[in-house]
Order: sequence, then C-alpha cells, then structure tokens
Amino acid sequence: MANQEDIFKKVISHAKEYGYIFQSSEIYDGLSAVYDYGQNGAELKKNIREYWWKAMVQLNDNIVGIDAAIFMHPTTWKASGHVDAFNDPLIDNKDSKKRYRADVLVEDHVAKIEAKIDKEVTKAAKRFGDSFDKDQFLSTNQRVLDYQNKATTILKRLGQSLEKEDLADVKALIEELGIVCPVSGSKNWTDVKQFNLMFGTKLGASADTATDLYLRPETAQGIFVNFLNVQKTGRMKIPFGIAQTGKAFRNEIVARQFIFRMREFEQMEMQYFIKPGTQKEWYEAWKEKRMKWHLSLGMGKENYRYHDHEKLAHYADAAADIEFKFPFGFKELEGIHSRTDFDLASHEKYSGKKLQYFDPELNESYVPYVLETSIGLDRMFLAVFSNSLVEEQLENNTSRVVLKLPAVLAPTKVAVLPLLRKDGLPEIAQKLVNELKWNFNVVYDEKDAVGRRYRRQDAVGTPFCVTVDHQTLEDETVTIRHRDSMEQQRIALSEVKGIIAKEVDMKEWLKGI
Amino acid sequence: MANQEDIFKKVISHAKEYGYIFQSSEIYDGLSAVYDYGQNGAELKKNIREYWWKAMVQLNDNIVGIDAAIFMHPTTWKASGHVDAFNDPLIDNKDSKKRYRADVLVEDHVAKIEAKIDKEVTKAAKRFGDSFDKDQFLSTNQRVLDYQNKATTILKRLGQSLEKEDLADVKALIEELGIVCPVSGSKNWTDVKQFNLMFGTKLGASADTATDLYLRPETAQGIFVNFLNVQKTGRMKIPFGIAQTGKAFRNEIVARQFIFRMREFEQMEMQYFIKPGTQKEWYEAWKEKRMKWHLSLGMGKENYRYHDHEKLAHYADAAADIEFKFPFGFKELEGIHSRTDFDLASHEKYSGKKLQYFDPELNESYVPYVLETSIGLDRMFLAVFSNSLVEEQLENNTSRVVLKLPAVLAPTKVAVLPLLRKDGLPEIAQKLVNELKWNFNVVYDEKDAVGRRYRRQDAVGTPFCVTVDHQTLEDETVTIRHRDSMEQQRIALSEVKGIIAKEVDMKEWLKGI
Repeated sequence: MANQEDIFKKVISHAKEYGYIFQSSEIYDGLSAVYDYGQNGAELKKNIREYWWKAMVQLNDNIVGIDAAIFMHPTTWKASGHVDAFNDPLIDNKDSKKRYRADVLVEDHVAKIEAKIDKEVTKAAKRFGDSFDKDQFLSTNQRVLDYQNKATTILKRLGQSLEKEDLADVKALIEELGIVCPVSGSKNWTDVKQFNLMFGTKLGASADTATDLYLRPETAQGIFVNFLNVQKTGRMKIPFGIAQTGKAFRNEIVARQFIFRMREFEQMEMQYFIKPGTQKEWYEAWKEKRMKWHLSLGMGKENYRYHDHEKLAHYADAAADIEFKFPFGFKELEGIHSRTDFDLASHEKYSGKKLQYFDPELNESYVPYVLETSIGLDRMFLAVFSNSLVEEQLENNTSRVVLKLPAVLAPTKVAVLPLLRKDGLPEIAQKLVNELKWNFNVVYDEKDAVGRRYRRQDAVGTPFCVTVDHQTLEDETVTIRHRDSMEQQRIALSEVKGIIAKEVDMKEWLKGI
Repeated sequence: MANQEDIFKKVISHAKEYGYIFQSSEIYDGLSAVYDYGQNGAELKKNIREYWWKAMVQLNDNIVGIDAAIFMHPTTWKASGHVDAFNDPLIDNKDSKKRYRADVLVEDHVAKIEAKIDKEVTKAAKRFGDSFDKDQFLSTNQRVLDYQNKATTILKRLGQSLEKEDLADVKALIEELGIVCPVSGSKNWTDVKQFNLMFGTKLGASADTATDLYLRPETAQGIFVNFLNVQKTGRMKIPFGIAQTGKAFRNEIVARQFIFRMREFEQMEMQYFIKPGTQKEWYEAWKEKRMKWHLSLGMGKENYRYHDHEKLAHYADAAADIEFKFPFGFKELEGIHSRTDFDLASHEKYSGKKLQYFDPELNESYVPYVLETSIGLDRMFLAVFSNSLVEEQLENNTSRVVLKLPAVLAPTKVAVLPLLRKDGLPEIAQKLVNELKWNFNVVYDEKDAVGRRYRRQDAVGTPFCVTVDHQTLEDETVTIRHRDSMEQQRIALSEVKGIIAKEVDMKEWLKGI
C-alpha cells in the first residue's frame, strides 16, 4: 500500500517536473481539484483525443462527430434527470463547520469494521500457522461473524434509506453508530441534505430576464438534443453513431486522486443509435470493440478488466466498465452503457417534439435505443502516463527514469542532437530539424553531454533520439537511439524521416482494431 | 445593404441544412447566442484549429502549447483587471422593462445625426450636379457644420463620462438628448449601472467554504499564470511563445450576428515573451506573420485589411486588428496586441511571487514584455464558411450552390461514387473507401443520379469526387472531379490516394508562411 502511494507521488511530481501537469493557478496557491496541462501534457492530451477520434469517427463510416456547446437550455437537465437526481447527500459538523458526504462517513465506518476482520484473520494465521484455513475461520469465528453481520446490516440500511431518500434515517444511522467528525471529534451533526452536483450560472444581464443555466455535467445530452438534426442533414441510417469530445463539470465534494476525479474534466463520448431490441448484441460488440482500442496501445492486457454493473443507473438496462490498473488500484476508465430510449423519450416528453427515426426497411417510425461508450480523457491521460513511468536499473549499476509512452502518443517524436557544438555538427542537426518539423514535433538539444541529453529525453518520453557526429560529415549517416531498448543503429540521414514516420503513424497503431 | 443581409441569411440557412451549425438546444426553442457544431461543422472547426496549431506550435521551435482549465483562482481576474473593468454600462427602460447598453443608445443617436449629414450631401449633389465639391460643401454648409459639431460634442462627452465612470452624466446625456426606448417609446429611464461581463459560479458545496469563481473571459490569463512553470520545465529562452486554444465566456448583452459574437466561444491565442524594449519590432513581425497565415488559405488578399487601434486598452502600448470582409462588412478577425509587462507585473503584485526571467546573456532578471496574437476560432470558421459559399450560374442555364472551402480545411476530402448500383461497381467503390479512410475523411454515396450526387458534394464542400464506372472494370481507372472547376480527369485507381493526399496536406498549404 505504501508502495502504491509512493508510485503515485512520483507520477504527480514527474508530471509537474516535465511540463505535463501543473496545479491550476499555482501562483495563487492553486484551485482544488483543477489542473492545467503544460507544454508536454497539452500534446499528449491532444494525441489521445485524436487517437480516439480517428478510431471512432474517421474509421467508422456510420459514425460522425459533433461539437455542442457547454451551455444548454436548462430544461435539458430536467429531462435528463440531473436536476432531480444528480445529488450527493451531505452533512455538516456544527463544531468544525466541515462538510462531508453522509454516505462516505458511513462507508468509512464500515471500512473500519472490516479492518477488524482482517486483523482477526492475521492474528489467527499467526497462531495456527500452516494449518490455518481462512475460509473456515471466517465462517466459524463468532467475533468475525458479528463484525460481518454488523457491516452488512449497516450497508443494507444505508442503501435502503438512500433509495427511499429517507435522509433523516441516514442521519439517525450516523448518530446510532456514534460517528465523530474527523476534525472536531464531535457528534454535533446537522441534518443530511441533498446537494446537486451541477455548477450553476446566470445568462443575461437583467434580473427579470436572466436564465439559470448549468455547466453541462456530461456531454451526452448535447448529442441527444441534436440527434434528429444530425440524422436528417447527414442522411444517416440506423445503426449510426454520434461522437463528441468536450468539457464537463461536476461540483464534487470530495475530489481527489490528482486528475482522476476533477471538477472540470473532458469526456470522449459516443452514442450509437440502434433499433429497439438489438441492444444486447450492440452492448457486447462495443464492449469488445472498445477493449481492442485500449489494447492497441500496447500497455499490457493484464492492466485491463471488465466490471459488469449489478446496480444500474435509472437510464440503463446494462452497463459495464473497462477498468484499468491505476497506481491506486483497478478503477473505471471507460463505461459502456445500454441507455435504452430513456433520454430520447424523455426529451420528447419535455420538448413536446417528436424525436423518432423513420426506418425505411421496416416502414415505421420509432424512438431509437442508445448504446453509449464514455471515457474520461483526463483518466485516459493518467492511465497512459502512470503506466509509462518506469525506473530502470541499468547494467552499470546506475538507474534511469524513463517515460515509455506509446510512440504514437508521445508529445515529441524525436530529439535531434549534435554530438558536439562545433565542426558544423549543429548546422547539420538544425537542417534536419527543419526538415522533420513539417511532419512531427521535434526538438533540438545541444546542451550537456550526449548521455545526459538521452536521459532528459527518456524522462520526457521522446521515443527517438538522432545524433549527428563526425561520421555524419563523412558518410551522411546518423545514429538513431530507441528510448525503450536504448539500442542505437547507424542509418542514413535520408532514412530518418521515413523510419520515424512509420513508428508514430496512427494508421499503423490502429490497424488491429 | 439588403443584398448583404440576404447573403448572410443564406450563410446561416446553408450552415444548418448541411450539418455545419445548429442552434443550441433547438428542440427547446434554442438558447440565445449559443450554437452547436454539427457533423460537418465539428470537422471544419477541428481542421481550422489544427491548421493554427501546426503553424504556431509545430513549425516554431520556440513556441509550445498548453491547455489550461476554464476555472482559475478568482484573484487571477482581480489582477487582470476583469473584476473592476470588464463592464458594460447598462440602463433599463421602466416601461418596457428592456435593458440597453447606455453607450450604444447614445451612439445610435449620433448615427442618426450623421445620417442627416449624408442626406444633406445627397441633396446637394443632386442640386449642384457635376460642379458639386463634397469636401467644400462639408466644410462650409452651416447646417452640416452644426450636425458635425453636435455629433462630436456628444461623443466627446460620452467618452469622458465613461472614462471617469461618471454614470450619472451618461444618464443625464441620454435625457438631454431626449432618447426614447425603441420598444415603449418612453423616456422613463433608470440609472445607468455597470454590469460585469463575466459569468460567475460557485465552487464547493458548503455556503461557508464556497468560492466564487468566474468562467474565464479570455484564455490569455491561463498562459500568464503558467509562464514560469513552462519556462522552467521547458528550459525556454526568451524570446519564446506559449500557445493555447480553448473556450472562453462573456455574458454579452447584445450578442448577435450568428457565431460572430457568442456568449460561449473558442479562442486561439499565443503570448510571445520578449525583452522589454523589443516590442515594436515583434509587433510588426507578428502582424506580418499572422497575415501570411491567413493568406495561405487562398481566400483573397482583398478580403483582409489591418486596422490600427488609436484608443488602446489599459494593458497595451500598441494594437491592431486583422479585419476580414464578412457578409456584414469588414470586422475584426484577429488581434495583435503589444501587452507590455502589464499582466505579469500585475500577477506579481497580487500573488506576491516573482514572475521574472533570468536572461543568461544579459546576466540579469526582468519581467518580460508580451506580444499577443488572438483569434476567435468561431469567427475564423464564419470567415471561411461565408467566403466559400457561392451560387454559380452554369453554361446550361442552370445554377449550382458550391461551398469552395480550402481543401485542407474541408470536413470530407473525397466522396466515392459508383456510377450505378450494379455490375460490381459498388464493391469496387467500397473497397476504395476502405483504403482511403485510413488517410482522410471519405464518404460513400450510391443514391440518386451521379449529377445530383455531385451537386450534393458541391454544397457540402467536398473538394473531390471519385466515380467508379464500367471502364473501371476494364482498365482500373476512375474519374476524379474537382469541385471548383468541375473538371474531370481519368486517373488510375492506384493514383487516387496520392493525388488527393497532396492536395489536402497541411504541409503543402503552410509552406509559404
């Protein structure tokens, strides 16, 4: 556990040190749970977005992209259910004035009970040695059984109270369990209240005519309200998809884990419009298709797994996550949701307008069902970045820090290095930079010994270094060094562009999907 | 004038009909001054953004990009001057309850006086015929001189009152001029009040701890607060630039002219950090450089002009616009501003942190000066789109509507059309689509007569159509049709990709800049 935390800390500090992620407004001591992408982060984020867009929009002839505004008509969020149901139950401690999620307070209490079970198990294992049978112990030890019962009972009651929106009982539960405020240590709690997670703002200048707006909490609704416009002007036939990337905003009470859960974040969503009744097959197909996309980046099959939801959101009849192994464990990276006709039917109801598709094959109109794939761009960034950061022991008893980003996503594709700052080597290197820059991001670096320059490019994740040396003057060859293997090859100057272009070409990476 | 309005109306309806721009939340009857980009608009916008990014970031080895959040620490906007000075003076009519910009009311009144001068000139020209000397008339006719004096006096007083924030005098001026509400016709005005144009929201759940945030009204400040982080982690040396694209928000009272002035819009800004004293030369250099970028798109030199500002913003010591000929006349498309050290010095003051650059050549530290280039992505979209839309009379007495987008920016690069839906032609066409789609956006269309399909692609702006016919079966050739000239050539199937790739390659288009 300590190890995981250490790794995560290294990820965060490396992201800052190498211009990937800065705390927002750092000179003003930051803004909680908001981050800025630096010069390398902006390129990595852009490349991930493009990798997704190319796979979803360009390569699928029945998927098109749109770019809807963050501001939407407020009734949109009545129809989607966000005004009524996008809430967290909050409670304040009157002494510390601190605010908490009531459900998290209870869950943390249960976690403590479960920790006691672990402790009993550890103790027993020590006592019984090789003859310890954990399963038997868990099912027979009375103290453990009591703990288990207690935990189950609490969680069941919490779930039921939340389901019924019986917030008074959630408070009663907190009081009965004797939960204290971690800051003040007191049990002096307010009532539990629902708090909506949408950010509000006001459009228009005059108090009479101002409209209460929300910053969209998801991009999906921008697709639903435009469904018919796109279908008609684009002459789309079902099944077809509409894809979108863009910012969304959630006023999270407990935002944490770096860029994993931010208040301002970017989504990459695709809504696939299908014939009612075909949702099961499309659900399976998109689960598989999206996993293939992830695996195409070569970040290790063992780092992904599916998690099928048992408890479904109000709009879904099936849902699964693709989870990724982050430094803090397996967590949701992407969601695949069978949303039925919930959204379109609801928008029909609230707008009074028909949102139906005329199916020329069936010769009838219907409200399509929707299959959604939804991935957080910032989470994907964190997955790629944290998975790529490695500290390697080298043969000569030294170590190096290397960011093994998939070459297709790396911010800079190649660094061009003159071995020395004389004998015309910088001029040749500069000339090469001026040729290569038309095709990809390239940097020139002439400072420090070449070994140190290699380390710098390793740390920032540049997949290739090309070094111009005295032999270049004689035979127009250079060395190309590969970041991950540290292997060096002698190649002709004229080959450089072609070799790198092939290695970083999205087409090549996406071929397998 | 009526003609201009007609053209603009055509632009708006074409944008909707062909999936470029939809009104936001149209099913809920829209949201004022907010628009969504449809399936073709999203691609055109994306291509413009990429064309800018490539020219600014990829091709300049001393310019890097970042991606800062929309949310920033609120003190940022104190330091930038937006909290205190980003206001419009507003006045309400008590009878109609309508709200107006007080300065616009006065300016509209002055415009009426100036119209009277024009009228006198027209009358006199008729009376005097060929012997009419307009300049002499303007400088000697007493009635005209009175009008001129009156207009000058009013505008001078308005300017002074606004400068001194003497809003009572702005109201007095409106009353003295007898300005009436265009809706109610009454002179029953409220006081004039300053109204800040920033959208506000609240971060955090509890009333005690909530932070008042603003949605950023410009992206520039995200660059300033990150200046040192980028400079240090990127080891940048002055002069260097930081570029960014992203959303900004302004609560405009009078938002109009389609996507020209929206409440939510996207900027593409670059801040160039320079040595104090060198701002004049960089100002000239960037004016020229940015004009070259515009001209590289081939939309007609005559459609651009510079407009040097006489009245400067509080942060600038020189400023110019690149204006473009929109359907409603020449208007600002891009701004080039010499911002001095205003922003960085102000952030130093408010944050208490040093924002200085250590210049290794001078061996001293200083707060850099800043040269800014700032362009509205949506405006650039409107410039490209409106300039490209043409109705052409053809030889056979018919006409066609064609969207002559620069091929590099067109959403779809090529349409592949089987001449007939039989004899294996669709199969060959589909095979070609599957090859081409890896390189660019391509559509397949087999519906209707081929002439009609050509028209459809003309209207949507696709630069190339490739038609598969019976000759293809024999000799593996196809026709390629060029959108603008309507010329058709017979080429080998194997040549298609190469020919189109060259025509739509950003490298080729940007070579001249």
